[in-house]
Amino acid sequence: MNIYTARREKLSAFLAQENVSLLMFEDTEGRRDASIRHLTGQPSDALLFLTPENVCLLAPWDVNMADKLAHADEIVPYNDFGTNPVKALAGAVTRFGLDTSAGKPRVEVPPSTPHPLFLQYAEALPNCEIVCRSQGLHSRETALRSIKDEHEVRIYRQLAELTNGMIAALEENVRDRLLKTETDVALFIEAEARKQGCEGVSFETLAAGAERSFGIHAFPAYTNAPFAGKGLSILDFGLKYQGYASDVTMTFARDTSPQQEALLTLTETAYHLALSLVKDGTKARDVAMAVDELFAGAGRTMPHGLGHGVGLEVHEEPRLSSREDNQWVLKTGMIFTIEPGLYDPLLGGCRLENDVLLGADGPEVLTKSHIVRLS
Amino acid sequence: MNIYTARREKLSAFLAQENVSLLMFEDTEGRRDASIRHLTGQPSDALLFLTPENVCLLAPWDVNMADKLAHADEIVPYNDFGTNPVKALAGAVTRFGLDTSAGKPRVEVPPSTPHPLFLQYAEALPNCEIVCRSQGLHSRETALRSIKDEHEVRIYRQLAELTNGMIAALEENVRDRLLKTETDVALFIEAEARKQGCEGVSFETLAAGAERSFGIHAFPAYTNAPFAGKGLSILDFGLKYQGYASDVTMTFARDTSPQQEALLTLTETAYHLALSLVKDGTKARDVAMAVDELFAGAGRTMPHGLGHGVGLEVHEEPRLSSREDNQWVLKTGMIFTIEPGLYDPLLGGCRLENDVLLGADGPEVLTKSHIVRLS
Repeated sequence: MNIYTARREKLSAFLAQENVSLLMFEDTEGRRDASIRHLTGQPSDALLFLTPENVCLLAPWDVNMADKLAHADEIVPYNDFGTNPVKALAGAVTRFGLDTSAGKPRVEVPPSTPHPLFLQYAEALPNCEIVCRSQGLHSRETALRSIKDEHEVRIYRQLAELTNGMIAALEENVRDRLLKTETDVALFIEAEARKQGCEGVSFETLAAGAERSFGIHAFPAYTNAPFAGKGLSILDFGLKYQGYASDVTMTFARDTSPQQEALLTLTETAYHLALSLVKDGTKARDVAMAVDELFAGAGRTMPHGLGHGVGLEVHEEPRLSSREDNQWVLKTGMIFTIEPGLYDPLLGGCRLENDVLLGADGPEVLTKSHIVRLS
Repeated sequence: MNIYTARREKLSAFLAQENVSLLMFEDTEGRRDASIRHLTGQPSDALLFLTPENVCLLAPWDVNMADKLAHADEIVPYNDFGTNPVKALAGAVTRFGLDTSAGKPRVEVPPSTPHPLFLQYAEALPNCEIVCRSQGLHSRETALRSIKDEHEVRIYRQLAELTNGMIAALEENVRDRLLKTETDVALFIEAEARKQGCEGVSFETLAAGAERSFGIHAFPAYTNAPFAGKGLSILDFGLKYQGYASDVTMTFARDTSPQQEALLTLTETAYHLALSLVKDGTKARDVAMAVDELFAGAGRTMPHGLGHGVGLEVHEEPRLSSREDNQWVLKTGMIFTIEPGLYDPLLGGCRLENDVLLGADGPEVLTKSHIVRLS
């Protein structure tokens, strides 16, 4: 069976189970959702409608692209619905001939649906019950996406090899002073990524020289400022390969003070602590809390989460955060980052981030990023 | 008066007028809104709360960055609210001491608020009336943003100069065959943009050689495929300067067939037709419909809108689309693209796009993109 049909089949079983007659996904500007790519292969800009019988209708913005790349039972240009989600939903309800004789069929729309649009759906389809839940069928799909299938693990192994080649090349070229500025480093990655057959980078490379590394995410992402000079420089980058994202952070340390070295060591300790706690069945929040406690003991606070799933989006479930509402449990087949980081207005910042596959025998660190000590 | 205070003052007058006691903006991953940058200078990742008395509270993710770049009456780390929008809204209601003695004060949340989050706001704040409207105060801010102030027009003149320098350099380097692949072209723009002092590009450059130009937006954005070979190649790019975006498209045509030349001429005719119709007081939809009619007469359909406002986001209001619900009226001070394009699976695609300032004396084409005929 085609991988996309197989994925949709898993999801459509939940439609039957939860008595939902039609499930809508939306991937448009301002409301991106990689689930459509996961379920059909269509890379962007489309709506998708799925039934409990595992029949789907894809309404892409660019129908030429969909004809080449997408797998769906039916493809209808979004333009045929006036590029209007209300008309498209109403059109899908009609095409699938939803039965309204025995009560209102349940139609589930994305949890990202803006409240005013939700009201428009309800008004346009008085014979349907419009369902919009933060923990509904879209969450089921998110959970399905959080566990990578064999096809995806195979892609991630290739992606890790590409990312590790980049890490090695970056370390060598920075050591040899061939890459001197933030822009040098970022454009080296852009060019090499394409040469290696990647779709590109998975997010705008963040290259922050020693003067700017105190910020969690440097702004602008990179400039003509020196990179890897005296102090702590952060390089956060990822590659995109066959749709999938890697995400790693290297810290380059040169001529560091004892206080800066202490910051680096503490970050490395946190990284290894987190890895030692990662097991099938562990609560993601517990791992993050252990790192928070380690940092608190040293009088430090990490201003961001410990990690996040990676996949068709660079930030996916599960979240490894210590937020109270984090209910994620780590499971075999998940791929996520571990990325402890500390930022000090005077000392600068450091972060160490790798992508980890939770295998049957425990965590496997796919990428080989590390803190690079220069002198 | 500080430009940010002045902008907030215009908006806060509408709060008083519409009896809204607190207005919330959100600029977070998945729900980006450049209005916070427009109103405070904070470039990203924050919530903003504004009162009818023009007092504002900014809750940034990165407080170090906000202390350097943002202008607000009070800055409180988003972390203090558990990085949770419900807690932040409740916290702002408390801090501003909203008066609930004479009925429920109206609190307006962004129109992008997901329906489930809207329900959470309502539950957390039973003493307030939570307002979430597609045509509410956020639309007022969008309309304010659509008319550029003097400060912004000054930036756009500098940005146009930078963009025009890039257009000239691209044409020269492609003619001289110094830029041969899609990646060559895209990375030339990336590197030059930084050298010229831009924040970067305003969106991922779309470089589609003749084999791929049939797609509206090439996917992947650029590859190692040849650029500007025989046929039609499209280059859609923009620069970001002091927060503001330019957006232009060049088409490179080499050794074209008569049918391809006809596609180019029709696109140029549409471009000049659109420009001739752009006046203060004209309905944006009427301009788009005139172009649609021109194309229909030639048996062609344009699969995207005719243009869009540019500003702190690359796609802003007004929309120059022929959609029925497009109510925008063109006004002096608006800056928008005109970008007719046609795409044929066999002939390839072409698009001509420039940024236009609607001045008191009519349209002024700020950027100098054009169809480049090579032989």
